[in-house]
Amino acid sequence: MTKTDWKAEAKALKKKVRKLKDNLTAAAGPVVEAVGEAVSDAVAAAKKALKPVSPLAPASFPALPAIRGVEFAAVEAGVRYQNRKDVMLVRLAPGTAMAGVFTRSTTRSACVRDCQSKLALKAGTAGAAIIVNSGNSNAFTGKIGDQAVAAVTGAVAEALAIPAGRVFSSSTGVIGEPLPFDKITAKVPDLVAALREDAIEMAAHAMMTTDTFPKGAAATVQGDGGVIHIAGIAKGSGMIAPDMATMLVYLFTDAKIAPATLQKLLSRNVDATFNSITVDSDTSTSDTLLMAATGQSDAGEMKGPVLKAFEAALKGVMHDLALQVVRDGEGATKLVEVRVTGAASDADAAKAAFAIANSPLVKTAIAGQDPNWGRIVAAIGKSGAAAERDLLSIRFGDILVAEKGWRNPEYTEQDGADYMLRPELLIHVDLGLGRAKRSVWTCDLTSRYVEINADYRS
Amino acid sequence: MTKTDWKAEAKALKKKVRKLKDNLTAAAGPVVEAVGEAVSDAVAAAKKALKPVSPLAPASFPALPAIRGVEFAAVEAGVRYQNRKDVMLVRLAPGTAMAGVFTRSTTRSACVRDCQSKLALKAGTAGAAIIVNSGNSNAFTGKIGDQAVAAVTGAVAEALAIPAGRVFSSSTGVIGEPLPFDKITAKVPDLVAALREDAIEMAAHAMMTTDTFPKGAAATVQGDGGVIHIAGIAKGSGMIAPDMATMLVYLFTDAKIAPATLQKLLSRNVDATFNSITVDSDTSTSDTLLMAATGQSDAGEMKGPVLKAFEAALKGVMHDLALQVVRDGEGATKLVEVRVTGAASDADAAKAAFAIANSPLVKTAIAGQDPNWGRIVAAIGKSGAAAERDLLSIRFGDILVAEKGWRNPEYTEQDGADYMLRPELLIHVDLGLGRAKRSVWTCDLTSRYVEINADYRS
Repeated sequence: MTKTDWKAEAKALKKKVRKLKDNLTAAAGPVVEAVGEAVSDAVAAAKKALKPVSPLAPASFPALPAIRGVEFAAVEAGVRYQNRKDVMLVRLAPGTAMAGVFTRSTTRSACVRDCQSKLALKAGTAGAAIIVNSGNSNAFTGKIGDQAVAAVTGAVAEALAIPAGRVFSSSTGVIGEPLPFDKITAKVPDLVAALREDAIEMAAHAMMTTDTFPKGAAATVQGDGGVIHIAGIAKGSGMIAPDMATMLVYLFTDAKIAPATLQKLLSRNVDATFNSITVDSDTSTSDTLLMAATGQSDAGEMKGPVLKAFEAALKGVMHDLALQVVRDGEGATKLVEVRVTGAASDADAAKAAFAIANSPLVKTAIAGQDPNWGRIVAAIGKSGAAAERDLLSIRFGDILVAEKGWRNPEYTEQDGADYMLRPELLIHVDLGLGRAKRSVWTCDLTSRYVEINADYRS
Repeated sequence: MTKTDWKAEAKALKKKVRKLKDNLTAAAGPVVEAVGEAVSDAVAAAKKALKPVSPLAPASFPALPAIRGVEFAAVEAGVRYQNRKDVMLVRLAPGTAMAGVFTRSTTRSACVRDCQSKLALKAGTAGAAIIVNSGNSNAFTGKIGDQAVAAVTGAVAEALAIPAGRVFSSSTGVIGEPLPFDKITAKVPDLVAALREDAIEMAAHAMMTTDTFPKGAAATVQGDGGVIHIAGIAKGSGMIAPDMATMLVYLFTDAKIAPATLQKLLSRNVDATFNSITVDSDTSTSDTLLMAATGQSDAGEMKGPVLKAFEAALKGVMHDLALQVVRDGEGATKLVEVRVTGAASDADAAKAAFAIANSPLVKTAIAGQDPNWGRIVAAIGKSGAAAERDLLSIRFGDILVAEKGWRNPEYTEQDGADYMLRPELLIHVDLGLGRAKRSVWTCDLTSRYVEINADYRS
């Protein structure tokens, strides 16, 4: 190139540099905007895709023992959800004893009413079955709902050659939509063909709605002549305030036990377990707890200390499953035990404990990791339980926050704030009036709970 | 320059262009990040600074009439908030009749207890006063709290030369923190000097905590020989479930009326107004409704039709203020009337209405503009009110959603979805069992409610 050419190129390049510099500035705005939008879209998409598991979930589904005489299967029926198993079947051997506890909601679902009437029948020695679908609760669906239950349980009875009176069903999901029961009956042959003793985890999965993890628990008891096993699965995440009964829970054992005894054990342990949890104070129309005892353990009929040990183990499994439901509370980041002691009566202990556990202001403070104990005071005050300002005390774990009518002078906000960072909290209120007590378990109320429930059907 | 020089410069420039291009790419990341952070910081700061007014707020504070014998003042005392008025004083002329309704919380505040004991005293003809601070509720503050009330009311009594037994006080804000009462007593002289007949709006402002607008309402009644005026102000936004009493509300009238009659009118209208609202089912420790009648109207003693008209006007003012509290419900975007008719008893109507109005699942569905009527079914079911699935009906406004135990075949999701877009909604449940009814007013439950209450003290 000539000098002139080089000069021209240099000038052109200088211009290019200026222009690039200008472009750099001018481009920054739209680039930032475009990148920002892309990033937030990606984050939103990722959030949706990830369906994050509750931070309070157990590390993994526990290893549950096979229970002799109990088989499970699950299939994709497309009741509402796509690309996942949404119907599960349990086959129970002849001679199985059944017991149950149900919601006392006046608007309870068709399957709950059906289960209740069937449990009232004389048991007989025929086999039994449980069929459960997720995605639709078949509640407030009128006569069509009753027909759906008859169709589903009838199809199972026919396929398994057992009386329809021994087929129990549950449905969980949206309320008020007719259940597309033909999608379920069409899959009954597949379900029967797939029955296996070791498929309990798959069955737990098939029941999930807004649950972020399947829930299972087990225990063993040494009986006379052999080991007795208990295994249970549960679903539940929102609409949890089983003050009258419980969520969808299925318990299995190979124990030899009469139906009446089984029912008694179940009923008297439900208050301290499933009836002591609340996520959002909303009681479901579908709450069902069914227990099946196949009697196929090598151990003989239970009595005395074995029966006592069995009841303790059963209560442990119930407690474990109940807490797993709270751990999967919609949007939950904290598991909270509210323990009320020193109440004047059992009813007062329950009133105070549930008032605290259901208070939106207490639950949002916990979500914000704010040791706002004044809201606990307000919840006690509104509960209707007998309380004397100057006699009650409030503790976070072992930290004495307030007593004698005002804040403990030793207590510091920093102590409270540090405690609130924990994922599992104990709020302990002693009313100082009597000897009655009650523990209930709840979770925090987060923006995520609102998001989940503002969007659930869309 | 020589050809070599130009060549060198051109090469250097080419290198510079490459480097600039590289930089442009390399810089994009950090720039985007920095800009993104700056933008989100700015948005957060703007949100905090804006403190947006509830979308359900009235267009403006109403023009309230001056009430003869009532003067107001407000000052900045710095109890908790800075740069805003946080203490207000009302002076009431000699001969004023006082009446009140209070929270029945067992953990109610020191000032509530003090008001209750003073209203029980023989009235006398001395003047009276009301002093209110925001930022600290003086609840659960033990003997120090009682001393604070004595100091504040004592300072006002001395400054106005009236008996301390005629000075009523309220405190609203954080629970469990000692009230820095010296900040208030130090400002009493300024308050007294600032008293004016036309400063009621300023007084309403001074009471606000998480409120986004001041609340006022008024009415006039034609009496014998002159007009009777009623004016009222209220505060309230969260911890609203005055099932037993109400929020901070002050009503003033120039009517000539005996304290006992005034108390009767107040008490029998509180159930249908303040006791029929709920934001979050949490009853406050400070709920106070005080009414003062100065008797300075030209109208004579009220009786017969005038007293009836006065009661109707008073109820109207109470209803208006109660709804303003719900309109300012924390995070609210919808005002919802839950109307239950056809209940077997008044108690059942209230149970069903409050169960729906307090259901987090119903309230989050409304926030999401989702016509999820199944959750209304569940709330009725859990309420404890007598209900028959096949007899009850559910309406959104005039739209029949469900009856006879299932969805109305004419109802479409689109009809429901369109209705839910409105800012003011009517959920009407007829239980089909009797003639009892109850309306309660509530708002939706939004992520903003959670944000406000997870952060309130920080």
